[in-house]
Amino acid sequence: MSFSERLALVQELVQRRLDHRMDGMGDEPVVQAMRYAVTGGKRLRAFLVMEGAALHGIPDHQSLDAAAAIEAMHAYSLVHDDLPCMDDDDMRRGQPTVHVKWDEATAVLAGDALQALAFDLLTHPSGVPERAQLALVAGMAHAAGALGMVLGQALDIAAETASVPLTLAEIERLQQGKTGALINWAATAGPVMALTDPSPMRRYATALGLAFQIADDILDATGDEAKIGKRVGKDAGAGKATFVSLLGLEGAKARASGLVAEAEAALSGYGAGAANLIAAARFVIARDS
Amino acid sequence: MSFSERLALVQELVQRRLDHRMDGMGDEPVVQAMRYAVTGGKRLRAFLVMEGAALHGIPDHQSLDAAAAIEAMHAYSLVHDDLPCMDDDDMRRGQPTVHVKWDEATAVLAGDALQALAFDLLTHPSGVPERAQLALVAGMAHAAGALGMVLGQALDIAAETASVPLTLAEIERLQQGKTGALINWAATAGPVMALTDPSPMRRYATALGLAFQIADDILDATGDEAKIGKRVGKDAGAGKATFVSLLGLEGAKARASGLVAEAEAALSGYGAGAANLIAAARFVIARDS
Repeated sequence: MSFSERLALVQELVQRRLDHRMDGMGDEPVVQAMRYAVTGGKRLRAFLVMEGAALHGIPDHQSLDAAAAIEAMHAYSLVHDDLPCMDDDDMRRGQPTVHVKWDEATAVLAGDALQALAFDLLTHPSGVPERAQLALVAGMAHAAGALGMVLGQALDIAAETASVPLTLAEIERLQQGKTGALINWAATAGPVMALTDPSPMRRYATALGLAFQIADDILDATGDEAKIGKRVGKDAGAGKATFVSLLGLEGAKARASGLVAEAEAALSGYGAGAANLIAAARFVIARDS
Repeated sequence: MSFSERLALVQELVQRRLDHRMDGMGDEPVVQAMRYAVTGGKRLRAFLVMEGAALHGIPDHQSLDAAAAIEAMHAYSLVHDDLPCMDDDDMRRGQPTVHVKWDEATAVLAGDALQALAFDLLTHPSGVPERAQLALVAGMAHAAGALGMVLGQALDIAAETASVPLTLAEIERLQQGKTGALINWAATAGPVMALTDPSPMRRYATALGLAFQIADDILDATGDEAKIGKRVGKDAGAGKATFVSLLGLEGAKARASGLVAEAEAALSGYGAGAANLIAAARFVIARDS
């Protein structure tokens, strides 16, 4: 199966799993908002979970809940990041953001419930050993929390009002929290489920996560708003330091390419089985949305 | 040990555990806000965890992380509930709320990270079987999520703008989510850890949770603002239905007393070992803050 076929399969399976999990949750506005927030998206994190799991002998039906969980967690982070008191974005994936379509209270609560849903999904019996499931929960709590994603978002917001633009090292620390921590969790979920060494996948994910963020900054500087589905040029317009402002456009592209090569090298021990993960790394810097 | 001595011990152990867990998290404002939000409070939920655990043969050192976890979860819910887009409260436990002392973004993020911290604490090795730990995680995700605490808060906010006041059945459903779900989790954590039948503790908790909310409404109608540490009379002033508005003050007091008797009856099979849990139920309706 090619990378794009595999990605499409992951997208379909994960959407169905999330929809099914929320079927019995009634029709309160907060649940409608949750369903809206988890619809669509590239599902890159879910792909990393399921492909990384398959590479370690874990079949799709055993990794699907973890893949759905990381997408619920990612969706929560987007809903909260878009709030007026945070990044104040009114469009996401070409649609109004949750607080625009409903209201701020519903957006806060839908995000809160999506975080809980992520942990809920990780506890479903999946045939994986219980200590592996518990390790997934622990890793996700760490990745999402005050030393992970929340820290990254807090640093990002602090950067908005800082008098001096961030340095490259500071931006990398911010990125490591804001997007790196969840990408790392996703890519290492497979070896964690298989109770095997996650360090090659961790090296892969670290390079991939940074490449992903650099590609985001390049898109923000050069991309097509209609394709991306959200406002572009916002960071540059706000005088905020980005990988592009610090490295220049060509420098940023070169750095991203170098990171993709690092990601590939990290998987060399896996042979041909890692082909789709390598394709994913290339996709991350080649995408136009 | 008397109820008040036991409660004081739980308060001290839980505060120390939470402080210790956050020691290595640095000093970003979001972490300062987390520490602030988990300081103080009655620790009733933690008491239910540790006393319910002790009643089922689980020693304090094995139940402490679960007790700290429920207090982190409760603290997150208060930080988010106090936000301007939610209940818009500026005082809590006699101190400025998190969004007043810092800002809204920090309050959203500190709440988000406290929810993650709750799940993190549940995964620490505690000597309890892994499947019991996983059951605690699953139960907490359910209690916190779209069918539990978030639903209760969503119904509460919807009630603010409803044209018709809620009925008694609707208020009970709201309460069951908003405070009942976490109280239920706390009281049943002991039997869940001991892999034994949680149903007597569940009956106890259901009665206790409702009595707790009725007592809150009575305090809101009659209490001393200085002792409670937050604004009172807000619900009555807003024309919002409460147990007091629906049952009258004497009716509400009688209902609360009846529920405490139900809570006691649920524990009759445990004999003298349940004395402090019974004292807790009496405390809940006798408190003045």
